[in-house]
Amino acid sequence: MKRPIIAVTMGDPTGVGPEIIARTLCDPEVRRTCRHLVIGDQLAMERALAITGERLSIEVLDDGMPPVDDVNDRIYVRPLSRLTAADMVFGAPSRASGVAMYDYITTAAQLCLSGDVAGMATAPINKEALNRAGYHYPGHTELLAELTGTDQFVMMLAGDRLRVALVTIHEALAHVPRLVTFDKVLSTIRTTHRDVSRYFRTNPRLAVLSLNPHCGEGGLFGDEEARVISPAIAVARAEGIDAVGPLSADTLFHFAAEGMYDAVVCMYHDQGLIPLKLLHFDDGVNVTLGLPIIRTSVDHGTAYDLAGTGKANHRSMVAAILLAARMASVRDQRGAEET
Amino acid sequence: MKRPIIAVTMGDPTGVGPEIIARTLCDPEVRRTCRHLVIGDQLAMERALAITGERLSIEVLDDGMPPVDDVNDRIYVRPLSRLTAADMVFGAPSRASGVAMYDYITTAAQLCLSGDVAGMATAPINKEALNRAGYHYPGHTELLAELTGTDQFVMMLAGDRLRVALVTIHEALAHVPRLVTFDKVLSTIRTTHRDVSRYFRTNPRLAVLSLNPHCGEGGLFGDEEARVISPAIAVARAEGIDAVGPLSADTLFHFAAEGMYDAVVCMYHDQGLIPLKLLHFDDGVNVTLGLPIIRTSVDHGTAYDLAGTGKANHRSMVAAILLAARMASVRDQRGAEET
Repeated sequence: MKRPIIAVTMGDPTGVGPEIIARTLCDPEVRRTCRHLVIGDQLAMERALAITGERLSIEVLDDGMPPVDDVNDRIYVRPLSRLTAADMVFGAPSRASGVAMYDYITTAAQLCLSGDVAGMATAPINKEALNRAGYHYPGHTELLAELTGTDQFVMMLAGDRLRVALVTIHEALAHVPRLVTFDKVLSTIRTTHRDVSRYFRTNPRLAVLSLNPHCGEGGLFGDEEARVISPAIAVARAEGIDAVGPLSADTLFHFAAEGMYDAVVCMYHDQGLIPLKLLHFDDGVNVTLGLPIIRTSVDHGTAYDLAGTGKANHRSMVAAILLAARMASVRDQRGAEET
Repeated sequence: MKRPIIAVTMGDPTGVGPEIIARTLCDPEVRRTCRHLVIGDQLAMERALAITGERLSIEVLDDGMPPVDDVNDRIYVRPLSRLTAADMVFGAPSRASGVAMYDYITTAAQLCLSGDVAGMATAPINKEALNRAGYHYPGHTELLAELTGTDQFVMMLAGDRLRVALVTIHEALAHVPRLVTFDKVLSTIRTTHRDVSRYFRTNPRLAVLSLNPHCGEGGLFGDEEARVISPAIAVARAEGIDAVGPLSADTLFHFAAEGMYDAVVCMYHDQGLIPLKLLHFDDGVNVTLGLPIIRTSVDHGTAYDLAGTGKANHRSMVAAILLAARMASVRDQRGAEET
C-alpha cells in the first residue's frame, strides 16, 4: 500500500516550527508511516537543520510530489517564500513572514482539496503576525473553515488515551453558560459523531459532559443540563447517535481514559484541556473536525522563547503527522469498502 | 511512639459507610499506622461484618479509648445509637438514622476538640436524610465549621500526586465568576498556606490557577485574572506566602503532578476535581482546612445502589484514615519542636 502524503506547513518562520519539523522528519515511525511535503521556506529549513544538527538534505519540489520511494535522509520542500535573514529573526515576526505563513496554509489546503495530498499537519503560527500581514483570522481553524467553505467545525484534542471535542473554545468563563446553547451542543455532537465515525471508529460512543458540577445536582446548582444539554442529547440519540449524558465531568475522565468512550464532548476549554494535557502533555494533537479535509496540528504555540535553541519538544508534531496519516488510511479504507 | 487514635464516624447507616469501615479496619497499613474508634452503631457494624465476611470482633467502648496495644482482629466501637433493622434498610434513610449520623459527627468533633483523639475521618452521609432529621446543613463541612466556631474553611482534595484547594465549591458555573472575589481568593490562599504548612510541609509552594482559559490571554477573554486573582496573589506574597500565578489550568496540572507545587488553588469545583479524580479515582481524600481539628473524609457519597452488596471500594476510606493519622503526626512533631 502506498504511504499517504501529508502536507506539513512550516508555520511561523520565527518560531519553533521549522526545527520541530526537522526533528520530526528524522523519526523512524513517521518515515515508515507516510511521505511528506513541507510547505515552507528553503532558507528557514536549512537554518533549522543547522540548529538541530539533523543530517537531512533538502530536495526542492516546486510542483511535483515526493516519489513513492522517498529517501529517508531527505526533506521534500515546496518553497513558497524567499525570506531573508532579516525576515526570520527568532521571536520577531515580520510582515513578510506573516504573508508567508498564510500562503503555506492556503496552498496546503488546496492540495488537500484537490487530492494531491492525503491531509495536512500544521506547525504553529502567531495570530498577531497573521493579522499584521493583513489576514484577519483568530487562527488556523477559522482560516481553513473559510478556505474550504465550512460552516460547522469542532476543535478536538486527541491522544491515544483520550479525545475531547469542545462546544465552546476561547471564551471567558463568564460567557460560557450562555454560549452553551441547544444548537451548539447538538451540532458539536453531530460533527463529532460524523468525523469520529469517518476517521477513527464506526458507531462511536460519545460521552457528553454536564456544564455544572455533579450535573447540577438535580437543578440545585444550575439548570443547563435539563434545559439545554439533555434535550440536545435526546435529539442526537433519536438520529441514531450513541451519545450518553449529561455526565459529571469530575468522574467521567477516569472511564474515558480506560476506553469506555471514543470521544468526550466538553462544554468549555479547560473542562477538556485539563484532562487531555494531564494525560498527553507532550503528544496531544489538535484535530479540526467538520472540514472536508484532514487537518491536524500541534497543540502548542510558536514558543518564541525556545525558537532557535533546538530544545523545543517535537513529540506533538510527530503525533500530529502520524495521526493525519492514520486518519487518511481509515478514510480511504472506508471509501474502498463503500465502492 | 504511640500510634494516634483516629475517630471514624460511621456515616449514613443505610449507605456503604459501615461496610467500607469494616474492610478498612482489616487493612494492615491502617492497623500499623493508627488506632481507631468507630463512632456509630453496634448492630450496623455487626451487619457490615456479616456482609463483608471480615473476621473481626466488636469491642464496645462506651467511654474509654482503645488501648495502646490494640488487638488487630478487633473493632473498637463507641455506640451512639441503637438502630433497629427497620431504621437501617439500605438506601432508605429514616429519621432515626438521620439523627444518629448527626450524633456521630458531633461526638467525634468533641473528642477532637478535647484532644481525646488525634483527628477524625468521616464516612459519607446523606444530606437529605440529615435535613429530614431536623439538621439543616448542606453537609459535613458546614456542620463541623459551626461545631468548631470556624469562619473560613477550605475544601481540599488530596492524593499522593496532587492536592487541590477550592475557592468555590458546589455552585452553578454561571455563578462562579462573581463568587471568585478578591477576598475569597485571598482567604483561600491564606487558609491553604497555613494548614498545608501545619500538616504537610513547611513553606509550601502554592500554584494559583486562572479562571479563564490561557489566563484570559491578556484580557482577550476575561479580566478576572488581572482584576481579582493577581491582586490577591500579590497580597499573599507580601505576607510571605509562596503563591505563584495566575497560571493556565490546562498545563499546570502536568507540573503539579510532577511535584512542583504542594497544593493548587482552584477557582471552581471541576477545575480541581477533574485532574484529582483522574489521578486518584479510588484513593482521593477530602480534607477540610481551616478547622481547629483534623478532619478527613472519603471523596464519595453513600452509594445506595451498592449498599449491602459488599462491593463498595474502600480505598478512599483507607486513604482518609491514613492521611488523618499522618497529618496528626506532622502536627504533633511540629508542636514538639516548637516547645
